[in-house]
Amino acid sequence: MWPRKDLLELLEIDHPIIQAPMGGESTPLMAIAVSNAGALGGLGCSYMSLDELRATTTEIRSGTNRSFNLSFFAHPPPKEDADVNARTKAMVTPFYEELGLAHIPNCGNGDCDPFDAARLEVLLNNCPTVTSFHFGLSPIDMVRALQSAGSVVLCSATTVAEARMLADAGVDAIIAQGWEAGGHRGTFEVSFEDFGVGTMALVPQIVDAVDVPVIAAGGIADGRGIAAAFALGAGGVQMGTAFLSCPEANIDDSYRAALRQASDDETRLTRAYSGRPARARNNRYIDAMASHRVALPDFPTMYGFADPLAQASRDNGDAELDFVLYGQAAPLNRELPAADLVARLVDEAQSLLNTPRGT
Amino acid sequence: MWPRKDLLELLEIDHPIIQAPMGGESTPLMAIAVSNAGALGGLGCSYMSLDELRATTTEIRSGTNRSFNLSFFAHPPPKEDADVNARTKAMVTPFYEELGLAHIPNCGNGDCDPFDAARLEVLLNNCPTVTSFHFGLSPIDMVRALQSAGSVVLCSATTVAEARMLADAGVDAIIAQGWEAGGHRGTFEVSFEDFGVGTMALVPQIVDAVDVPVIAAGGIADGRGIAAAFALGAGGVQMGTAFLSCPEANIDDSYRAALRQASDDETRLTRAYSGRPARARNNRYIDAMASHRVALPDFPTMYGFADPLAQASRDNGDAELDFVLYGQAAPLNRELPAADLVARLVDEAQSLLNTPRGT
Repeated sequence: MWPRKDLLELLEIDHPIIQAPMGGESTPLMAIAVSNAGALGGLGCSYMSLDELRATTTEIRSGTNRSFNLSFFAHPPPKEDADVNARTKAMVTPFYEELGLAHIPNCGNGDCDPFDAARLEVLLNNCPTVTSFHFGLSPIDMVRALQSAGSVVLCSATTVAEARMLADAGVDAIIAQGWEAGGHRGTFEVSFEDFGVGTMALVPQIVDAVDVPVIAAGGIADGRGIAAAFALGAGGVQMGTAFLSCPEANIDDSYRAALRQASDDETRLTRAYSGRPARARNNRYIDAMASHRVALPDFPTMYGFADPLAQASRDNGDAELDFVLYGQAAPLNRELPAADLVARLVDEAQSLLNTPRGT
Repeated sequence: MWPRKDLLELLEIDHPIIQAPMGGESTPLMAIAVSNAGALGGLGCSYMSLDELRATTTEIRSGTNRSFNLSFFAHPPPKEDADVNARTKAMVTPFYEELGLAHIPNCGNGDCDPFDAARLEVLLNNCPTVTSFHFGLSPIDMVRALQSAGSVVLCSATTVAEARMLADAGVDAIIAQGWEAGGHRGTFEVSFEDFGVGTMALVPQIVDAVDVPVIAAGGIADGRGIAAAFALGAGGVQMGTAFLSCPEANIDDSYRAALRQASDDETRLTRAYSGRPARARNNRYIDAMASHRVALPDFPTMYGFADPLAQASRDNGDAELDFVLYGQAAPLNRELPAADLVARLVDEAQSLLNTPRGT
């Protein structure tokens, strides 16, 4: 069925597809559907309160007895810089004025704490099968506590150097996140986005560098990408954008419309919404903020400046200046329920992998 | 042997590997060795005089009776802009001073004409099996003349939109050049480099968009990449960086040393040497020029400002500020004669493609 099984055995899943645990866009219903279909469903939990985290874990456990993944950001706590705030306020002001927003914030803020002891305690009381980290790894004693409690720990790397650091820290498998991927880049060591490594180049180099299973991510949207990932030496794939077109995704109509009209070359990396580089549909705000090439407030405080713009833009109906996250393979998306999408992906990949190839 | 044969039949080759016709770095000896090994050797001819083009064609024909590829840039003629020249002079001046170069040019220049009637006449008198274009397609009557004379015509696309334009223009196959690729991006419609599409996302979308064979390029360095390209729907691959480590490559010791020490995330796109975006090893000059984010002189006239710096840097022995072109998979390079590299790539790819995959 599949060329290698190390990742399947590690995660206790039937199919080597990890639904990216997109914070905000994924839902318990999506995670349950994907896990029940034999792949790995997941949910980004960094924007949740502790109560929401408890309730969510219980909800997913009540919907599936298969493996599932809860995901957290492991960013350093933001530092506040008055000069950066003042400069950022000046840069965003024209957009506030255009959208008719009277109150322009003087400083950033964002409701997203790094993974911490309180969250760890919630997880240890009701441990998910898989815990994944983005923006680096949480402190090593927390990683060990999760592993001791029976959770497999994954973390994203965007370069070979990051992958080596994660392997040395003892993560159980590494998500090799290529340039093409939508959403936030998991990078924690690279300072700037000009150096993003494409999936085709990144995956085999990480496979050669570490001894744990490697999960390919970025630009994979159908069975062709899954088969290609195995050829590159991966043990499976993580797909986010592909699941955004499922009815289970928590996105509004303007976001769905953007996905339907997506083209390959209309997204770019931006720090202008959260403070960390994320791949999103380009717009005038992103262009303008990029042209300054100056420091913005740390993640997640930049949200404090950008969220009112994104919200007002959504309220206008066209979401022209909204933060619309997706990757470069979005045009390949299919609008299917998540379980049907998993089945389709498995069929496509297996027919490529199991057909005699020589002619 | 190979999953599909359309490209093999079109190009009359045994193995679906095109050695990228790198102008300056590839050589007639490399092209001959690759073609005689059953793949497609090639040579970039845009920096040659007409006499050199005639002599080169004769030299390759005398060394192989297999298919070979001559490649040309199809850029628009450069326009001169006094303001751009003055600003560029100001930006490069600190580097001229650092390197002790007394004469700083007042305007750009570069010895590289677009493909034209004179070059066409040389080709029609001794037609190469394959002619390829970069930076867009030459005028359509010239393309038709080459095809009528028996040459297959290839051209690079970096987006789906570019691929559609090339297919509509009647090219015989399209090189889908992803973000990872070293050297000059073949783009002719996209204005800026932030929107580069990775190979994993680009190839299947171009495959779906056109009816001609698609050649995957960018980040492919070994048999894993070749097998992955077939999974994505390509009919073959183009590899450039991988052939730079062959003894037949025309590169100096500092360039070879850079390849030996390459890492995945140390290259970036720059216009600061030629005026067009190219992926090269990053350095202080590239960083500084990028930070301005302003227009530079058109290709190839920017060479007039940058060549003296690159030459002086090479003369210093460390080539710290030299234009060192390679792609994101350079760390996977093997130092083998070109014919041996082709044989190795074929073995690696076929063992992945022809092994029963299911377990």
